Amino acid sequence: MSDIGITVKKDQDFSEWYTEVVMKSEMADYAPIKGCMIIREHAYAIWEKIQEVFNKKIKDTGHRNVYFPMFIPEGFLKKEAEHFEGFIPEVAWVTHGGDTPLEERLAIRPTSETIMYATFAKWIRSWRDLPIKINQWCNIVRWETKATKPFLRTREFLWQEGHTAHATSEEAEEEVLYALGEYQDVIEKYLAIPVIAGKKTESEKFAGAQYTTTLEAIMPDGKALQMGTSHNLGQNFGKVFDIKFIGEDKKDHFVWQTSWGFTTRLIGALIMVHGDDKGLVLPPRVAPIQVVIVPIPVKGADPAPIAAKTKEIYASLKEKGVAIVLDDREEYTPGWKFNQWELKGVPLRIEIGPRDLKQQQVMMVRRDTRQKITVKEQEAVNKVTELLEEIQHNLYARARIELESKTSAVKNYEEFKEVLKEKGGFIKAAWCGSPECEAKIKEETGATIRLKPFEKETTTERCVFGGEEAQEIVYFARSY
Amino acid sequence: MSDIGITVKKDQDFSEWYTEVVMKSEMADYAPIKGCMIIREHAYAIWEKIQEVFNKKIKDTGHRNVYFPMFIPEGFLKKEAEHFEGFIPEVAWVTHGGDTPLEERLAIRPTSETIMYATFAKWIRSWRDLPIKINQWCNIVRWETKATKPFLRTREFLWQEGHTAHATSEEAEEEVLYALGEYQDVIEKYLAIPVIAGKKTESEKFAGAQYTTTLEAIMPDGKALQMGTSHNLGQNFGKVFDIKFIGEDKKDHFVWQTSWGFTTRLIGALIMVHGDDKGLVLPPRVAPIQVVIVPIPVKGADPAPIAAKTKEIYASLKEKGVAIVLDDREEYTPGWKFNQWELKGVPLRIEIGPRDLKQQQVMMVRRDTRQKITVKEQEAVNKVTELLEEIQHNLYARARIELESKTSAVKNYEEFKEVLKEKGGFIKAAWCGSPECEAKIKEETGATIRLKPFEKETTTERCVFGGEEAQEIVYFARSY
Repeated sequence: MSDIGITVKKDQDFSEWYTEVVMKSEMADYAPIKGCMIIREHAYAIWEKIQEVFNKKIKDTGHRNVYFPMFIPEGFLKKEAEHFEGFIPEVAWVTHGGDTPLEERLAIRPTSETIMYATFAKWIRSWRDLPIKINQWCNIVRWETKATKPFLRTREFLWQEGHTAHATSEEAEEEVLYALGEYQDVIEKYLAIPVIAGKKTESEKFAGAQYTTTLEAIMPDGKALQMGTSHNLGQNFGKVFDIKFIGEDKKDHFVWQTSWGFTTRLIGALIMVHGDDKGLVLPPRVAPIQVVIVPIPVKGADPAPIAAKTKEIYASLKEKGVAIVLDDREEYTPGWKFNQWELKGVPLRIEIGPRDLKQQQVMMVRRDTRQKITVKEQEAVNKVTELLEEIQHNLYARARIELESKTSAVKNYEEFKEVLKEKGGFIKAAWCGSPECEAKIKEETGATIRLKPFEKETTTERCVFGGEEAQEIVYFARSY
Repeated sequence: MSDIGITVKKDQDFSEWYTEVVMKSEMADYAPIKGCMIIREHAYAIWEKIQEVFNKKIKDTGHRNVYFPMFIPEGFLKKEAEHFEGFIPEVAWVTHGGDTPLEERLAIRPTSETIMYATFAKWIRSWRDLPIKINQWCNIVRWETKATKPFLRTREFLWQEGHTAHATSEEAEEEVLYALGEYQDVIEKYLAIPVIAGKKTESEKFAGAQYTTTLEAIMPDGKALQMGTSHNLGQNFGKVFDIKFIGEDKKDHFVWQTSWGFTTRLIGALIMVHGDDKGLVLPPRVAPIQVVIVPIPVKGADPAPIAAKTKEIYASLKEKGVAIVLDDREEYTPGWKFNQWELKGVPLRIEIGPRDLKQQQVMMVRRDTRQKITVKEQEAVNKVTELLEEIQHNLYARARIELESKTSAVKNYEEFKEVLKEKGGFIKAAWCGSPECEAKIKEETGATIRLKPFEKETTTERCVFGGEEAQEIVYFARSY
């Protein structure tokens, strides 16, 4: 038994616990290529669920999916200087097609602004062609030199990238916040992970953006994880790629642009935030399997009536649209099955044994609290729906408490360093706004400014590092 | 007006017609990288529809989606000799990550057998681990040196690739035909393209397979297009990658494998088969927009009642689940709109003008036949459903007749060459089974054996090329 279970406690060796959960729950596997991963069916199904939810949202608001080539000529990447600087060190280069060296080497997309916007320039002529609101789901390559970890940092990963072009700056601003809002909805309502939202500082923004907005979550080890970002590109790329339109005023204007993305990292966050010493714990709204039903045979008793009842309840739940698996495999014991489905994070287990049958009841076991609940047979279907909702909310509420307990306000640098060392998490501190203080703090502590809250928190305190007059309270953390 | 319409007739310059339709209907655009394309929203939405339909099918039969890395170490590709020979000339090579040369160069997947099966060897231990039935939707790169054409031949394209491993040869055989059957269903029932099914010859099979099954369609220019293939890999890869399992007999066995795929080429076929001189014609079951509704304002008449009626019918169709667009833009004339939606292949158009309003009727115009039908207002919703079904069936029926008219049986090589020259299409001819005759015919005429029908058609004729005793009747054609 023990060899399939998790052998490390989450609060004892978090990093090792994470790797064990990822591998043993069959979310991912190491690929035979350094720094790459295999996304297995259990995790990919979650990604598909995220895609389904997000696609519905963005299509309802007039966005459309497309697919652009993954090859980007070196010259394109170089056009926007800041953008180039930001991405060039981690680009994978294609140099040969068959035996033939290429005339110009090609980058595998680290992001698609340049290739897309070169084409926007062709598509956009008049204000009637605006807005353009497109999105693509694709693979991305960034040749990481740091240690990689499944879902959190790999050289190839999956993401969505939205790219829009607008006639006015206001529209672009709205779009930036629209995308971030939808991200927040997906992450909080589906993945049950609470986040904080705000703006990145100049040194942390997307390379080539005017500003970057972000959602940040906190992991159990006290490190922050960036969950999704939405960028206001202003007219930076428009000017570089010459994306102009003739306005209703008959004059030439450059477009205003946004881009936004989230990645398969979200799955890493999901694992870290909700998992426990038994393995994964999946929120019902994204769980590929929401309920598993297991017949409990008892030696000497006739298995047929239990099998029949199990199938009956399975069928009525399936009909209701519940993602349910009936595990009636004979080669495994109920105990083995319980462990396996707990490892895989299935939110709810239903057991039916001889005693349940006799008393016209079933046993339900919640994955999140491991609570056992006896339910009358005729109430089973409704109870499942109810419990799944409850589990969803409980996971979010638990994580919310965790986020709050991992958020500290500090008054000075000593306290800052102590909190960072003792418990990590988000540290709210006053900052004078200077990149120098920001850089020094990063250098000395490893913590960066994760975000400046949208609602500027003014303060009478002085900068936590330099002691100058502070501009506002910002959130620091070490991060993934 | 004319600059947005198609300027070339389909039966006069088919190749140019195709390119114009693809570009002007905004299905695709040239990418700023040689041999690559941009899949635009109108085409990508069709791809999404195909994904939805196919995912449902394969998931219902126990297949699951996954994602493997797109990088394949050169050494892996080389392991299966035939496979390597088949793919190596068109591999794109990644040689650098950032500034650092890689120790071993990496192929961008031309197909994923090798990377997946190296991992299967790790996953499979016992008969209990079988079958494995996985699929992935991803991008594929084959560095074509021939002239490229959107959807039909590009250096990067999208596809799905199914990969399975089984305990017995029989199961693998069944799986091969299962996949081909689902392909046929998607292609005939959704894309409305009739196909013929059969086996590839030894020289045309997938590099590394035991045998390949295929679906072939005929295009209006008389050339065949391979629509999807399903391969029985036997134990070839199992032996090379050492994929063994302990059977119920406690002995070691190599697994039996299959792989199968179709690509975004299907969209090219869709355009070619159904399109006409006005542009695209899309089958309702895969059309991103099934119905467009256009109010027809008349000078001097009050536009409000027409607008209200149009919105009412729009709403009731939308509620019914019809993919409908209400085109009430004021900056374009009805005539301009008609042309635009015809160009984009929308199956059905509804017009409402003052006369319709007065007589409580609407005008429906079929894209496939361009027939105009007056429908009583209260019957409009039901009529739309009925017409969409009718259009779907009509497109298939038309294409079926075309396929039959483009299939010829010939008795000798003279006739063979004449038919090929005059009308092309499928040529049924007797073949002795020798690769030499096959190669000679290809060399002299450009035609290849597209398939050997599953139901062997025996014959008393002699080989169309060499005159030896014939094995069977096979289908020849020039192809894309």
